[in-house]
Amino acid sequence: MRALVLERQGELALRDIAIHESVADDDVRIAVHTVGICGSDVHYYQHGRIGDHVVTEPMVLGHEASGTVVEVGADVTHLRPGDRVCMEPGIADIAHDVSRRGHYNLEPSVRFWATPPVHGVLRPFVVHPASLTYRLPDSVSFAHGAMVEPLAVGVHAVNKARLQLGDTALVLGAGTIGVLTALAARAAGASRVLVTDVNAAKLRVLAHYPFLDGIDAARENVAERVLAASGGRGADVVFEASGAAVAAESCVDLVAAAGAVVFVGMPQRPIAYDVVVAQRKEVRVEHVFRYANVFERTVALLAGGQVDVTPLLSRTFGFAESVAAFELAASGAGDVVKVQIELGDEHGSVGS
Amino acid sequence: MRALVLERQGELALRDIAIHESVADDDVRIAVHTVGICGSDVHYYQHGRIGDHVVTEPMVLGHEASGTVVEVGADVTHLRPGDRVCMEPGIADIAHDVSRRGHYNLEPSVRFWATPPVHGVLRPFVVHPASLTYRLPDSVSFAHGAMVEPLAVGVHAVNKARLQLGDTALVLGAGTIGVLTALAARAAGASRVLVTDVNAAKLRVLAHYPFLDGIDAARENVAERVLAASGGRGADVVFEASGAAVAAESCVDLVAAAGAVVFVGMPQRPIAYDVVVAQRKEVRVEHVFRYANVFERTVALLAGGQVDVTPLLSRTFGFAESVAAFELAASGAGDVVKVQIELGDEHGSVGS
Amino acid sequence: MRALVLERQGELALRDIAIHESVADDDVRIAVHTVGICGSDVHYYQHGRIGDHVVTEPMVLGHEASGTVVEVGADVTHLRPGDRVCMEPGIADIAHDVSRRGHYNLEPSVRFWATPPVHGVLRPFVVHPASLTYRLPDSVSFAHGAMVEPLAVGVHAVNKARLQLGDTALVLGAGTIGVLTALAARAAGASRVLVTDVNAAKLRVLAHYPFLDGIDAARENVAERVLAASGGRGADVVFEASGAAVAAESCVDLVAAAGAVVFVGMPQRPIAYDVVVAQRKEVRVEHVFRYANVFERTVALLAGGQVDVTPLLSRTFGFAESVAAFELAASGAGDVVKVQIELGDEHGSVGS
Amino acid sequence: MRALVLERQGELALRDIAIHESVADDDVRIAVHTVGICGSDVHYYQHGRIGDHVVTEPMVLGHEASGTVVEVGADVTHLRPGDRVCMEPGIADIAHDVSRRGHYNLEPSVRFWATPPVHGVLRPFVVHPASLTYRLPDSVSFAHGAMVEPLAVGVHAVNKARLQLGDTALVLGAGTIGVLTALAARAAGASRVLVTDVNAAKLRVLAHYPFLDGIDAARENVAERVLAASGGRGADVVFEASGAAVAAESCVDLVAAAGAVVFVGMPQRPIAYDVVVAQRKEVRVEHVFRYANVFERTVALLAGGQVDVTPLLSRTFGFAESVAAFELAASGAGDVVKVQIELGDEHGSVGS
Repeated sequence: MRALVLERQGELALRDIAIHESVADDDVRIAVHTVGICGSDVHYYQHGRIGDHVVTEPMVLGHEASGTVVEVGADVTHLRPGDRVCMEPGIADIAHDVSRRGHYNLEPSVRFWATPPVHGVLRPFVVHPASLTYRLPDSVSFAHGAMVEPLAVGVHAVNKARLQLGDTALVLGAGTIGVLTALAARAAGASRVLVTDVNAAKLRVLAHYPFLDGIDAARENVAERVLAASGGRGADVVFEASGAAVAAESCVDLVAAAGAVVFVGMPQRPIAYDVVVAQRKEVRVEHVFRYANVFERTVALLAGGQVDVTPLLSRTFGFAESVAAFELAASGAGDVVKVQIELGDEHGSVGS
Repeated sequence: MRALVLERQGELALRDIAIHESVADDDVRIAVHTVGICGSDVHYYQHGRIGDHVVTEPMVLGHEASGTVVEVGADVTHLRPGDRVCMEPGIADIAHDVSRRGHYNLEPSVRFWATPPVHGVLRPFVVHPASLTYRLPDSVSFAHGAMVEPLAVGVHAVNKARLQLGDTALVLGAGTIGVLTALAARAAGASRVLVTDVNAAKLRVLAHYPFLDGIDAARENVAERVLAASGGRGADVVFEASGAAVAAESCVDLVAAAGAVVFVGMPQRPIAYDVVVAQRKEVRVEHVFRYANVFERTVALLAGGQVDVTPLLSRTFGFAESVAAFELAASGAGDVVKVQIELGDEHGSVGS
Repeated sequence: MRALVLERQGELALRDIAIHESVADDDVRIAVHTVGICGSDVHYYQHGRIGDHVVTEPMVLGHEASGTVVEVGADVTHLRPGDRVCMEPGIADIAHDVSRRGHYNLEPSVRFWATPPVHGVLRPFVVHPASLTYRLPDSVSFAHGAMVEPLAVGVHAVNKARLQLGDTALVLGAGTIGVLTALAARAAGASRVLVTDVNAAKLRVLAHYPFLDGIDAARENVAERVLAASGGRGADVVFEASGAAVAAESCVDLVAAAGAVVFVGMPQRPIAYDVVVAQRKEVRVEHVFRYANVFERTVALLAGGQVDVTPLLSRTFGFAESVAAFELAASGAGDVVKVQIELGDEHGSVGS
Repeated sequence: MRALVLERQGELALRDIAIHESVADDDVRIAVHTVGICGSDVHYYQHGRIGDHVVTEPMVLGHEASGTVVEVGADVTHLRPGDRVCMEPGIADIAHDVSRRGHYNLEPSVRFWATPPVHGVLRPFVVHPASLTYRLPDSVSFAHGAMVEPLAVGVHAVNKARLQLGDTALVLGAGTIGVLTALAARAAGASRVLVTDVNAAKLRVLAHYPFLDGIDAARENVAERVLAASGGRGADVVFEASGAAVAAESCVDLVAAAGAVVFVGMPQRPIAYDVVVAQRKEVRVEHVFRYANVFERTVALLAGGQVDVTPLLSRTFGFAESVAAFELAASGAGDVVKVQIELGDEHGSVGS
């Protein structure tokens, strides 16, 4: 079938690739409709690796996806052909001890779309476990359905934070994940949500969300803004979503006593961490790795209107323009948030 | 000073009463502006008692209050005369073991306004600990400030539930506390919020909140509605806010596996409780008694626009019409939610 | 193969029965060594049913078991033939939403040994998922290995309670589960553990555990004893393990403010439950249904010497005496705690 | 009164000092009996400061204390003259927001014994709030009572960890706090408890506790030992109690997926912290600052025999030998754990 293939670092091709997947009893086959481009897709494209994950063979990109069920396995009862769906990209061994305790995202052998050597879904069809395939209600479009995956990161981060009604939340980093985390924090009842970035252009999208306060970290004193917003207490929850060391290192300074810091972004190198400062406040520090058990409720948040991702959908390309889509996503333009690709016309026949 | 006094069961009088309070170092004196009438005020008026609490001496009613600071003690730093405030009505011994663990609402000697023998605040002035007096931002009116107290019950209930983003919540009972709990649940990220009542008139107020689904429990099958809303799972959280035994007895049937039931309403007699049904689902059952540590964040929710109580403010009376206000509140009319009394013109002189 | 078969209510037979099980890739075949008799086995024998579970076909009894691995499936890596093991009896659909969240014990289609229509393990061999089969270290005998299952209930109950170091714990009911829960509570750091029963004979086994205080509930005032032990506070955690309505109804009276009640025993009918009493204390009520994710750590507790079950092993029978073993277990003698059956000599050939 | 005074860095004197304390209504006066020397006492002696806390005036040392009540304030009901007690050294403003939420140890204005400018208790008498004074049962000696304070740190750390039955716990650092934390972890149900130190002499005390496994971190591979003890999983909980950067930096490598790291020791400089490693495991990191709400339960653990501190009491000095006691404590000898001072004969008259 035709797919967007990362041949090697820096080289993308929209070409035919042989992927033959059969539908097991617990599986469904999905005609992919919309796929968002994630920062990790761009990173593999530009660098050919993320940490220990190295692209050594051509790999199909894409893991933020929605589509339509076209075939269901014998044991599948909650889905039918024609159902509009989104998909949770990581397939773990759910009999593993850590999975059974509810943390299947941490299962070491998890196979995750577009993480070498597993193909992603920028291709017309994919076979997937029905248990990781979620029906979209009519009120959730394919475009929004393809936003469930990144929003799930924010929802998971807010769950880890155990954010409470009336909290002051601070999000460091106004990239896609940062803004989605801020939206999840607001949806969970934070009364003040501050979002920082050193790139003022990235803060512009916040204008669509009057309840999010942007802070230009290159020009403003973040600590002063946080103290002013929180009655001098500090942020009840700090979400680090920039991956920048300087931001990550500021978290324990910005959080309130008995507050929580959640590391969402991934700094490339170890950061300097002041244990004693964190002890004075008895900070709880949580770390998130993707998500677990939140897709269904993330769909519900979109359906319920509690999170509106429309302002984040910067531009949509046709499948034939996939490479151009990646070029835009990779441009780093401050006003580009989410780029999506629609595969609408690629579904001539199953397995093609 | 002039006050609304419950002389004995069934007999109210707006009359002078000698209350002399001095401002200690940690206290403030507040000119009371608005007081909401609570179901407990009405209950003392009609029955002269609530459980073990019996009105044996004349008692000033009212505990849902906002006002303006007119005097501050020597050690008070966070408030100044002129500050608009709302007040947390229960004064506990905070050195008590249970208080120090964060549960000062459970401290057995707590003195709570308008609970015998403690006078309430339907009077021009009251002296109160500064630590239980919370500044209202300009965006929160006195009327809304006087709603902080009942809304705090809902916020506390949602905290106890540990409600998560995307939960389906069910609230049994559409009285003031039920609706406020539903609003708090929505503010905390419940994607579906169902509210039941056997009195269809009480459900009418929900029309102001399109995200709340009313269920006429006298005519509709509540279980079917809950299952339909939750994908067959049951409610992730059930809040019992009616105090009716039949409702309280239905909670464990309506909740999802691994879900939570929160008892907010107070059934007059023990209910029939099916332990085995609750075990099959490993239900967590929480109970709330007033609230603790939520006033400041409840003010923040009103200020942040996440909870709008305006549709619940049914009618406002002047202080001189206090008895009429109580008559309306006690009428049980389905379309009366919250009745408030304004004391605006009673503050001729401090201590009068 | 030869098995102890419950033909119908009141009729047991040790006879051949055709059970043909093949070892799938994720399975192991186990030669059963020791099986404890549970109250539920006795209940099916005497009553032919437990709640909705009715014995309509002959069923092999037994689910508290240890044994030796004799065959492993192709994908099994953590076990080898010859490994001494114990087995977790319930097989759930782990792809189900509630399982993935960590609560596989609540999955509605779970198949549990010796719960109709699923055969138990009073038979020489059984095939079981490797992921539910746990290796016993040398320090844990087969007899103790067969106690992991009932002890797991106590461990799960203590986890649900979130028992803390220095808590005062109260266990209502000195049956096997009650005593095992008390031992788990002590192992988890309860500094005072009180155990009640109305049958004084059942309290005798506590003499083996000097750190457990027995209370003869037929003669002593339980509330007074609890208050004396807890400095007037009440029990931080109450475990209801008797299944008696009168005990279950006393829990909220006996627990401390901000304490927890855990319902382990299963009262046959709904109990009278005083919501208002529970509210005054903001009691948290937890319910347990079997256990999840605790077998490995329960084995570790036995291996670490933190729980000694030897005093509870009242009598061991050979497989040929199985019916006599059940008669003793069913006798209700106060000094009989756990009766076990050894199948040592029944393993002539696999699949016999 | 006579007291052990730190005149300035490096200079101790046992001399008269004017301290006049009156007993307020909520206070008690205590004749101090035994005081343990803490690492912080030694640190002030050797360095004249800890972080921002600088000794600028002569200060009495000592905060690990037990004694006998000699006078009680008018409102004190739970203590009487003659009661043997231990004391919680930090006096916070309990009306402060963070105190009311249960974290009075984080209240910024907390006054803590022997932290400049607050005098410690190496003096015959001290006046203290009754609510922070805990009665010792007959089974707890004065020497053990003076160990409640350091053991409380371990109990608090275990509470923060939310340690569960059957966990594998790893404690880095075999100083007093490390060993006490290990003992608390065992008391809370850890089935394997490993304790490391780079000073083999410090591990010798573990011989008294057969359930604690020492690891000589200078010679052994800690990671291998942890994996072997935990079935390859890593430690469920890692307590950093050494304050050494290299140890603190190893925590996230040694912990299991979904496990917890608790920072107890205070590294002098920021450590290198690998966020990505912690994310792969979704580690929860907790920090402890002293303790809150655990003194009463710590006394109960000693009374219940669940923690035996006797092997840790290395040497006891008379008050007159206080300076020699400090010299020994400051010697850094590997086999010296806790040095205590008895003031037995100093109580000629109250206020002397």
